[in-house]
Amino acid sequence: MTETLIDKRARLLGPNIPTFYDDPVHLVKGEGVWLWDKDGRKYLDCYNNVPHVGHCHPKVVEAICKQAGTLNTHTRYLHDGIVDYAERLTATFDASLDNVLMTCTGSEANDVALRMAQAVTGNTGVIATDYTYHGNTMAVAQLSQTKPPIGGYWDNMAFVPAPDSYRPLGGEAGMAHARAFAAAVEEKIAELQAKGHGLSALVICPFFANEGFPDLPHGWLTPAIDAVRRAGGVIIADEVQPGFGRLGSHFWGHERMGFLPEIVTVGKPMANGHPVGAVIAGHDTMAAFRNAFAYFNTFGGNPVSMAACLATLDVIQSEGLQDNAQQVGAYAKTSLQQLADRHDSIGDVRGAGLFFGAEMVLDRDSKTPAPEYTKRVANGMRQRGVLMNFLGRNRNVLKMRPPLVFSRANVDQVIETLDTVLTETPVTE
Amino acid sequence: MTETLIDKRARLLGPNIPTFYDDPVHLVKGEGVWLWDKDGRKYLDCYNNVPHVGHCHPKVVEAICKQAGTLNTHTRYLHDGIVDYAERLTATFDASLDNVLMTCTGSEANDVALRMAQAVTGNTGVIATDYTYHGNTMAVAQLSQTKPPIGGYWDNMAFVPAPDSYRPLGGEAGMAHARAFAAAVEEKIAELQAKGHGLSALVICPFFANEGFPDLPHGWLTPAIDAVRRAGGVIIADEVQPGFGRLGSHFWGHERMGFLPEIVTVGKPMANGHPVGAVIAGHDTMAAFRNAFAYFNTFGGNPVSMAACLATLDVIQSEGLQDNAQQVGAYAKTSLQQLADRHDSIGDVRGAGLFFGAEMVLDRDSKTPAPEYTKRVANGMRQRGVLMNFLGRNRNVLKMRPPLVFSRANVDQVIETLDTVLTETPVTE
Repeated sequence: MTETLIDKRARLLGPNIPTFYDDPVHLVKGEGVWLWDKDGRKYLDCYNNVPHVGHCHPKVVEAICKQAGTLNTHTRYLHDGIVDYAERLTATFDASLDNVLMTCTGSEANDVALRMAQAVTGNTGVIATDYTYHGNTMAVAQLSQTKPPIGGYWDNMAFVPAPDSYRPLGGEAGMAHARAFAAAVEEKIAELQAKGHGLSALVICPFFANEGFPDLPHGWLTPAIDAVRRAGGVIIADEVQPGFGRLGSHFWGHERMGFLPEIVTVGKPMANGHPVGAVIAGHDTMAAFRNAFAYFNTFGGNPVSMAACLATLDVIQSEGLQDNAQQVGAYAKTSLQQLADRHDSIGDVRGAGLFFGAEMVLDRDSKTPAPEYTKRVANGMRQRGVLMNFLGRNRNVLKMRPPLVFSRANVDQVIETLDTVLTETPVTE
Repeated sequence: MTETLIDKRARLLGPNIPTFYDDPVHLVKGEGVWLWDKDGRKYLDCYNNVPHVGHCHPKVVEAICKQAGTLNTHTRYLHDGIVDYAERLTATFDASLDNVLMTCTGSEANDVALRMAQAVTGNTGVIATDYTYHGNTMAVAQLSQTKPPIGGYWDNMAFVPAPDSYRPLGGEAGMAHARAFAAAVEEKIAELQAKGHGLSALVICPFFANEGFPDLPHGWLTPAIDAVRRAGGVIIADEVQPGFGRLGSHFWGHERMGFLPEIVTVGKPMANGHPVGAVIAGHDTMAAFRNAFAYFNTFGGNPVSMAACLATLDVIQSEGLQDNAQQVGAYAKTSLQQLADRHDSIGDVRGAGLFFGAEMVLDRDSKTPAPEYTKRVANGMRQRGVLMNFLGRNRNVLKMRPPLVFSRANVDQVIETLDTVLTETPVTE
């Protein structure tokens, strides 16, 4: 009997290797918003923020090829690439965020950010939200309750409930919810101080992407952020998912929420799939880290990675992809809301720009989550040629986060297919 | 006044960014063993193990370009690349090392390896050597005394003196030295056990590359390894520097030393500069980690990285580069030994394959290290167009670790230039 690709993965990579869908797709080709499997079947990619400007964008591919054939070396030699990109990247932020540290992954970026916060505050306590994920290093794994770390949690880690606009803490949405969140943060600050750790940082995704991207008003985080700063802590904004124009209205998630973090981390989309991450901070914050630890990253900031980053940023700006995210995203959200009129299982439609989705429920009055149903819907979409997935604290939020070159016609295909799948999938657990 | 590239780095990247040489080289192009600066000056690269098969090797560049233009996505979809490479990579190891986990850097690989050792042994204590470096994550920074971690050392870390064949522990070289090293390891095991951590791993570079690559006989590590296994610990062999055929006689550093580790980590040279790292272990060891932690690495194992890895391995094998490393490396070592006949400042010549160098001293009888002199020699070589550097516990070992396509003519150029620089540099501190 022939060994399947899944068998080979199990034999060579070990057990418990994550895949998408009950019947994982075997891909061979990508272009723009499209993917093809080994049998030539075409899929609409509605859930991949890594190929941010579209799969295999020719300008990014050309930049990689050209630089890979010219020079690739580390930053202990001088090269224009890293300073040119640092100049361009910092220009997209508030003037106070003027320094960059290059890594190879978002995990490495968050790993540095934790130490940067520790170096600049002199404290070690960290607060994160309870259904998030920030990466896979030993230190960063401490920030996740969805993937518990080997050996358990450190004493300096604390968690607060992530905001849920559909079922707000304290029962009331908006700023009452914001104050309840801030009170939870204050409680954890007091605990960390009582243990002698003090507070170094609150780490958040400003879109709460993994928690189900709740619908929060501008300024919602301000009470919590004020509490962090009163305690001498800093804010680490993990922009790996919402950043680089995806949310449409703003280039960065923290701008949309109306706050200015001390430290920003980025990753996945910044080079359209080439392994890159970065930490952005003000000079004094960066200096506190750089002077406390002799950081060097062999591949970080190499000329090929920088060429890929520069080309990706060029394409976002020259093709107006932030604006496209805003317009097509608004159309997608409206279309999903119209679909909700015909399907009671859609309990709540949420999102911003090209990061949108719907919370699926057994019953709108009780808001009872429907995770098994949601999983069947995601698998049904895959069978009908549209790739999306689901997440959230109840694993019942259909999440759509396509490349930023997504069009209205792509949205129409998603909505029509979803209409069909919802119609044919019984709403049961 | 025009802002220089070094000024720009300080403004955009912050302070304390490492560079090579008093007058850092501003590079624009690379090919094979050659690098060019912005003024068109050509340099012989004698110190870069990242472009393992030569700068911008056309086969690696072609593989990257082709795959970057076809598909780049994560491993939650199925793709042939990762299993094809895992099959090829594991084939270079003992049959017991049959599973692979892909990362983006050697640091990420060591960060995983530490948790893998913890998962498989149930213990948390770690022993490393005192002048080594294994990477830059918060956890891996714990393994280094040359770059002390922010916040100090964890209670479960312990260090033993790295072997120094020129000044052996206990005064006697060879197996007496090996038993003295094993005794130091046993002492630290007892301390970790007394503290309640037990022993999870001894982490070593099997070539002790950063410590000055001491000249150790086959089997030298066996007494220490026996002590580790008696205590229930495992060996993590960090092959980031000696691996992939560099040592000439063997494909892996641990083979040359005559031991079989439970966990191997690799990085820098494996894709000729593309950001890749990996952990190789037996199925049960991998399963202990995979089942204890839901590890996923967005960029790890992507099709472009795998194409770069495969092409690099193809070139190593098809161009006979391990054999070249052995032959040219032997010639280099002999040539260096002949040079030592004319320069008393060369206290000791060491190395294997294309990883060789010389320990520089003020006086051969006292073996007094000459770090300032060594630094001036490295800068003098750079001024004369040969790039090399220095390291070791006394910062007095000239280290040469060129791309594996290094030729005898390249060796001749190094030796002639070194002869000139040693002649014109006063042996003083």
